[in-house]
Amino acid sequence: MHQLQRREHAGSDTATGDVKIGYVGGGSQGWAHTLINDLAQCEDVSGTVALYDVDHEAAAKNAELGNRVVEQEGASGEWTFEAHRSLEEALDGAEFVICSIQDPPDETFVHDIDVPATYGIYQTVADTVGPGGVFRSLRAIPQYRRIAATVRAHCPDAWVINYTNPMTVCTRALYEEYPDINAIGLCHEVFGTQRLLAELAEKYVAEANDVSAEDIDVNVKGVNHFTWVDEAYWQGHDVFQYLDEELAARKPLPGNDPGDFDGESYWINNHQVAFDLYDTFGLLGAAGDRHLAEFVPWYLDIDEPSEIQRWGIRLTPSSARVDDGDGPAKMERYLSGDETFEFKESGEEAVDIVRALLGLEPLKTHVNYPNVGQTPDLTDGAVVETNALITGDRVAPVTAGTLPPEVRSMVQTHVTNQETLVAAGFAGDLDLAFRAFCNDALVTVQPDEAKALFAELVALERDY
Amino acid sequence: MHQLQRREHAGSDTATGDVKIGYVGGGSQGWAHTLINDLAQCEDVSGTVALYDVDHEAAAKNAELGNRVVEQEGASGEWTFEAHRSLEEALDGAEFVICSIQDPPDETFVHDIDVPATYGIYQTVADTVGPGGVFRSLRAIPQYRRIAATVRAHCPDAWVINYTNPMTVCTRALYEEYPDINAIGLCHEVFGTQRLLAELAEKYVAEANDVSAEDIDVNVKGVNHFTWVDEAYWQGHDVFQYLDEELAARKPLPGNDPGDFDGESYWINNHQVAFDLYDTFGLLGAAGDRHLAEFVPWYLDIDEPSEIQRWGIRLTPSSARVDDGDGPAKMERYLSGDETFEFKESGEEAVDIVRALLGLEPLKTHVNYPNVGQTPDLTDGAVVETNALITGDRVAPVTAGTLPPEVRSMVQTHVTNQETLVAAGFAGDLDLAFRAFCNDALVTVQPDEAKALFAELVALERDY
Amino acid sequence: MHQLQRREHAGSDTATGDVKIGYVGGGSQGWAHTLINDLAQCEDVSGTVALYDVDHEAAAKNAELGNRVVEQEGASGEWTFEAHRSLEEALDGAEFVICSIQDPPDETFVHDIDVPATYGIYQTVADTVGPGGVFRSLRAIPQYRRIAATVRAHCPDAWVINYTNPMTVCTRALYEEYPDINAIGLCHEVFGTQRLLAELAEKYVAEANDVSAEDIDVNVKGVNHFTWVDEAYWQGHDVFQYLDEELAARKPLPGNDPGDFDGESYWINNHQVAFDLYDTFGLLGAAGDRHLAEFVPWYLDIDEPSEIQRWGIRLTPSSARVDDGDGPAKMERYLSGDETFEFKESGEEAVDIVRALLGLEPLKTHVNYPNVGQTPDLTDGAVVETNALITGDRVAPVTAGTLPPEVRSMVQTHVTNQETLVAAGFAGDLDLAFRAFCNDALVTVQPDEAKALFAELVALERDY
Amino acid sequence: MHQLQRREHAGSDTATGDVKIGYVGGGSQGWAHTLINDLAQCEDVSGTVALYDVDHEAAAKNAELGNRVVEQEGASGEWTFEAHRSLEEALDGAEFVICSIQDPPDETFVHDIDVPATYGIYQTVADTVGPGGVFRSLRAIPQYRRIAATVRAHCPDAWVINYTNPMTVCTRALYEEYPDINAIGLCHEVFGTQRLLAELAEKYVAEANDVSAEDIDVNVKGVNHFTWVDEAYWQGHDVFQYLDEELAARKPLPGNDPGDFDGESYWINNHQVAFDLYDTFGLLGAAGDRHLAEFVPWYLDIDEPSEIQRWGIRLTPSSARVDDGDGPAKMERYLSGDETFEFKESGEEAVDIVRALLGLEPLKTHVNYPNVGQTPDLTDGAVVETNALITGDRVAPVTAGTLPPEVRSMVQTHVTNQETLVAAGFAGDLDLAFRAFCNDALVTVQPDEAKALFAELVALERDY
Ligand SMILES: [Mg+2]
Ligand SMILES: [Mg+2]
Ligand SMILES: [Mg+2]
Ligand SMILES: [Mg+2]
Repeated sequence: MHQLQRREHAGSDTATGDVKIGYVGGGSQGWAHTLINDLAQCEDVSGTVALYDVDHEAAAKNAELGNRVVEQEGASGEWTFEAHRSLEEALDGAEFVICSIQDPPDETFVHDIDVPATYGIYQTVADTVGPGGVFRSLRAIPQYRRIAATVRAHCPDAWVINYTNPMTVCTRALYEEYPDINAIGLCHEVFGTQRLLAELAEKYVAEANDVSAEDIDVNVKGVNHFTWVDEAYWQGHDVFQYLDEELAARKPLPGNDPGDFDGESYWINNHQVAFDLYDTFGLLGAAGDRHLAEFVPWYLDIDEPSEIQRWGIRLTPSSARVDDGDGPAKMERYLSGDETFEFKESGEEAVDIVRALLGLEPLKTHVNYPNVGQTPDLTDGAVVETNALITGDRVAPVTAGTLPPEVRSMVQTHVTNQETLVAAGFAGDLDLAFRAFCNDALVTVQPDEAKALFAELVALERDY
Repeated sequence: MHQLQRREHAGSDTATGDVKIGYVGGGSQGWAHTLINDLAQCEDVSGTVALYDVDHEAAAKNAELGNRVVEQEGASGEWTFEAHRSLEEALDGAEFVICSIQDPPDETFVHDIDVPATYGIYQTVADTVGPGGVFRSLRAIPQYRRIAATVRAHCPDAWVINYTNPMTVCTRALYEEYPDINAIGLCHEVFGTQRLLAELAEKYVAEANDVSAEDIDVNVKGVNHFTWVDEAYWQGHDVFQYLDEELAARKPLPGNDPGDFDGESYWINNHQVAFDLYDTFGLLGAAGDRHLAEFVPWYLDIDEPSEIQRWGIRLTPSSARVDDGDGPAKMERYLSGDETFEFKESGEEAVDIVRALLGLEPLKTHVNYPNVGQTPDLTDGAVVETNALITGDRVAPVTAGTLPPEVRSMVQTHVTNQETLVAAGFAGDLDLAFRAFCNDALVTVQPDEAKALFAELVALERDY
Repeated sequence: MHQLQRREHAGSDTATGDVKIGYVGGGSQGWAHTLINDLAQCEDVSGTVALYDVDHEAAAKNAELGNRVVEQEGASGEWTFEAHRSLEEALDGAEFVICSIQDPPDETFVHDIDVPATYGIYQTVADTVGPGGVFRSLRAIPQYRRIAATVRAHCPDAWVINYTNPMTVCTRALYEEYPDINAIGLCHEVFGTQRLLAELAEKYVAEANDVSAEDIDVNVKGVNHFTWVDEAYWQGHDVFQYLDEELAARKPLPGNDPGDFDGESYWINNHQVAFDLYDTFGLLGAAGDRHLAEFVPWYLDIDEPSEIQRWGIRLTPSSARVDDGDGPAKMERYLSGDETFEFKESGEEAVDIVRALLGLEPLKTHVNYPNVGQTPDLTDGAVVETNALITGDRVAPVTAGTLPPEVRSMVQTHVTNQETLVAAGFAGDLDLAFRAFCNDALVTVQPDEAKALFAELVALERDY
Repeated sequence: MHQLQRREHAGSDTATGDVKIGYVGGGSQGWAHTLINDLAQCEDVSGTVALYDVDHEAAAKNAELGNRVVEQEGASGEWTFEAHRSLEEALDGAEFVICSIQDPPDETFVHDIDVPATYGIYQTVADTVGPGGVFRSLRAIPQYRRIAATVRAHCPDAWVINYTNPMTVCTRALYEEYPDINAIGLCHEVFGTQRLLAELAEKYVAEANDVSAEDIDVNVKGVNHFTWVDEAYWQGHDVFQYLDEELAARKPLPGNDPGDFDGESYWINNHQVAFDLYDTFGLLGAAGDRHLAEFVPWYLDIDEPSEIQRWGIRLTPSSARVDDGDGPAKMERYLSGDETFEFKESGEEAVDIVRALLGLEPLKTHVNYPNVGQTPDLTDGAVVETNALITGDRVAPVTAGTLPPEVRSMVQTHVTNQETLVAAGFAGDLDLAFRAFCNDALVTVQPDEAKALFAELVALERDY
């Protein structure tokens, strides 16, 4: 028996007193600020964060911000932030490496989304699958090979935590380049499903109030953004028994009309796709509908963008992906002292995972990790998403069981495509990449058109 | 070492002198006449053919014809033909059972093809996959369960040779009902590929003239009508080396325009789909293009029927499936003696297979048979199509090896659907059948439309 | 993320306030007293324990003791103990079923151990494998079928916790009879390995003192009593790095002579076999040496009993298995009030597992459970031993990875034998059981002798 | 359909008119003379045989003999024989390579057999498994790596036909060194089983007389020298039905006493082991008893050599393996013209296989070949023995199905050992080799003795 509570540390705390975290993509204003927030509040680990970014200026500003924040009142962590000009330096001797790479140049987004649309192929996110996902994969692979090679050379035993999409392909590329790497990929989408289930628990279980999403114990299986949940418990209550009731209340699906969400956020999500998948396949789709819709050929079989609103979601136009919002202005205010950095509960897990891997507090969460038996009906070694138990120095995926045959069929097709894309990216073989492109669920156009679209995207993105 | 030539029989010929063949669907005018033709020319086996058909009249006429033909000049076989009123009687004590069931009522064809078309789903054949294939499967399963149960009760060791489509589902249903059954399914489509390769040998090998299709040694793998060939030899020459040359000559693909084949046969086939698949995936599709096109979402992604002619094939309208042609009149002429039955080389293998299973002459051909390792990357136990070696009492599939990952992905999706349809048919579970329906390559419409189409077909075909 | 700490219960405690535990083998004086001890100290669960035993008298005494103990000072749990005359009654409506069956009649032990010895086959324990393990399995299977059938009929959703040996066969028999059963098997042996590793941590890690066995995080894989550990961490320290140092210190192996342990306990264990296996195979055998030695043909290849002492263990003579010790006298003193039941820390997990399954406090421990991917290179569905994460209503085995090929070879042979024994026991097929018998590692005698031994044991044990 | 008869060649015969066969071990007096015999009688292929041997003198004599024999009356083949001083020259441009390597120096045999005997480990053959098989494997691997590397460099598309033992390890080493090699291994043992079955057919089938072994159609599966047959047909008669009758007649087994065969040939074989395996496992062991006995721990669990005679076989003493017989004298008589080479029906298949691979006459036989699905329950890629269909340029193993679990267990253990030995041989890792050594069925001695024996053999054979 192994108690899973927080462990009192025996004697010295050397193991946790001088931790180095290398951060690839350290110039970001989203994820980097979250990390600063979380480390500043972490009481039992301290050390150095080495930021690296192709935009060194941005990394340097983040370092300055980080060092300032840890001195703020309310900050308990002792951390030093440094910006490095070389990836090698940033990772050298690191115990942990966090990857959250700056999105690729804006133009690529525009191509990824707008060019396929001229062929009648619409995408809601375009970051994982679909034509956009394929090309994003091909762009990411060389970057992740380089990261893996640097880890092998400069910090071979480090734990690498990836946040960048396409999650599966990036994480898989790390293992392909350096098979002994210790790497996991983290994504939020399943938390959204846990929130939905928490709401159902509140709605249907008499004594349930203020149910926290993280108290919903879910069995997760599949691949990132096309994950599935087939069991959910809240304090001994089987939450799944209420799904049928909820489904009946939501029917008929889809429940909306084109235009219903014209004024809404591009990121709106009503779980209609998740419930429709549950209705047909008996398993709940466990990612946002914008993601789920891209993995099957049906929902995005539309003639013009507004039609997808029938399912309670919107197409994210490429323009919405370019604008960086008010980040830069905010940063200036922070650095000038005009605005104080406000600590919050981030919901991010990276620091908790660091603590778990340091042996401080075991953790169960869902991770993207090579398949070693956790989903025995998917390709061995492919990166899949399931729960894992994280303890000192070990990430052990929890067995999630098999998928129903038809769901497995859909998931496995994407697993195969992603494996093929990694192989194609490593070999520089565009013909091979095209085989995966054809097998993508959204590519149902005539073969000569598919070839033309592929060639057009290759030509446009050759430079990146 | 086992010599594969014809074997001289030692002593008595009891093993082959009194063979009983039960024939389910014995009232047909196509396949039954071929069997009469072939048995009448078979010198080393004799016995009885017991014909059974729901249309007893038709079976009786075929019996009369058969008995008359074996007395004709030029007939060497000694066979008696009998028509039976019960399936049980026809199969009782049989060593062989041939199934070539009368097509289902005409209306079902109309529904199978015309109703999906109103949803924008076009099918070239509609006998194996696509909405038509799904419903044809659901209709066939109860019939094949009954056949298998009758075999178990009346001739448990008989070899069952199936010709009816959907080939995979029918053959699989036999094994599902009676796991110890000895059954194989036979189909012509690969012969067409061998003919194509024979033509290529003639065209590209200097010394090759009059190459016979059956002399092309091919490695076959996949499922019926979605088979693939990855190796072909003619007398030690690797025919595959010429495929690229031929592909280059045929490019660009597709090579036609809508309307190009308006006046042609509905069954026309130019191997453009087969070559396009070869171009993309590196393996030759090994069935007629009308079949191949239905297994992937691309070629039939058309807005109106004539568009498919770009690929050198036509949609077969439901009307073309109803007309039985001049069969009945011909039969009358045969029976009245106005026309003599003319013997021909049928190209059918059933009689050769009977002879092989009787230990007379070993045979290698492609068969549909449960997967016992011949295609190790497809579901174990599913019915697949590969070469097999047929010797006395044994059908041993020949290992065909694995498929490239993306081709496997496409084939396995159909394998899964067909397994699910059999499960659904046995359980009478339409919700389960709908899961396979959604995963069909041609079903890329909105989920609510797919449900409506499925429900409409269920309602229309409930009576059959 | 799912926090793994103890959870505060929201509102009512109905889920944990009226729990029924059925106890098969409830007349025992070992395990039953431990359960009474642990439940009496459990603060957050209460309910009823229904004891069933073929020796009803003994169960009734335990019930009386239990009811008395929970009233004692220091007891915090509210539990009622009842003895039932029928298994059905005891299990009816239970949420948990504990099985710790009285050992079979004394004579069987004598046969299991003494008869094989006349053929030169010596066994150290004879409860899992070897001739004794085979026959014990055959005796246990009918009993476990009956338990499973009773669970299906009277408490189909209950969690069954088995403690009886042969662990693998008993647990597997439960699943074979009732595939939807929720059952796990628990064994102490791995704790002994954790203790060994805790000692190594203390010895080799500078800052380590008083290392608790349960703080050693081990990766466990294999089958019960033939488990292996290939990773061990203590607070971020890799304990495995010290194994080689320790091995060098212990060499040469074996380190003793025949007779060295003549006066010692029959249960003595010096981990020499575990270290010798580590030396050869690179993995640490993770059970007591008395168990490990029986799973391979080498250590027990001896000509007379004392030779095994070279490896620091002794043969347990059958006489040592018969004597029940001072249990009965102690019971009398308890019930007469002459002696007070003294609470202790039992080290048993059953109550902690009950609490985890009720959603109170997650637990990671090693369990015997059907293989669903946790050990992907062993037979799917066979009962294997690995870590598992136990949360509300779920037992999720943790992926343990593959074994080195040669170790897998040895383990898989036992997996196969145990699967065959279950099949043989269910079919009542002694010829099939003999095939497993021959493949047992200790059966290396001439085939005619093996047959004679098997027949002799069958004849002797027919009555049980 | 593919007719399997001899094919008339169209037009020119260039494909078969100038074939080069490289022969490694071409100085032998057994196999080389058989090849000369068979080629001299082969009418439809001609070309050159390039002999290579470490004993060049011997190869040169064989070349001289070969050239003389093809000129003899009665010789129909047109072949030229040449002896080469380098392996590279001999194989350069070859279409076929035959390997039948001179046995290793005499002393190794003595060690392989006599040293283990001092530890109480007796071996009947010592060429495949057992301590002798392990060391013979380790000696052979470097030689076979060199052959494979030479094939890759000098005749990458050649078909390599291996006759050398240990068959599995040698053939597997070829594929390990050069994965694209075309190689098969051939062995006679199954023919002996076919002869046994032919005798049973004659004995039990009324109309059967003079049944030829090659007319027995058997389903073969397993690994070389530990093959099994589970189906056998002769002209439509199931020969397996008579095995029980024959077994009853032969019982009790073993049927002899020590000393019964003192004066007999060391190679005597009465199929008692094969029948005993059939009795226990329901499958017929399909190799000579001298081989079969070495793969399980039972039969050779003897205290002195004569005991094995109870099973109708003898131990072959190392002395019997050294003497080369009257070969040299015979050769002198041939070359001097004192004796005429007499043509015979050799029973060897190599020339028939050459003809099949040239597209002349398809052949079914049993071969040793990497597992690609023919035995789906054994390790993928390991070399296994099953039937195969050999046609122009292709060797396609025929699916043989699975083994009963216990037989699979025994066979798979050897498969694992052989895979490990190849890995150990390639890595030069004796510790790894020792793991296989321990798992060998005959190594049931104490671990410290096993280590001592292994070390002694390593020391003795270091020089070879
Ligand atoms: Mg994400
Ligand atoms: Mg067909
Ligand atoms: Mg135990
Ligand atoms: Mg041999």
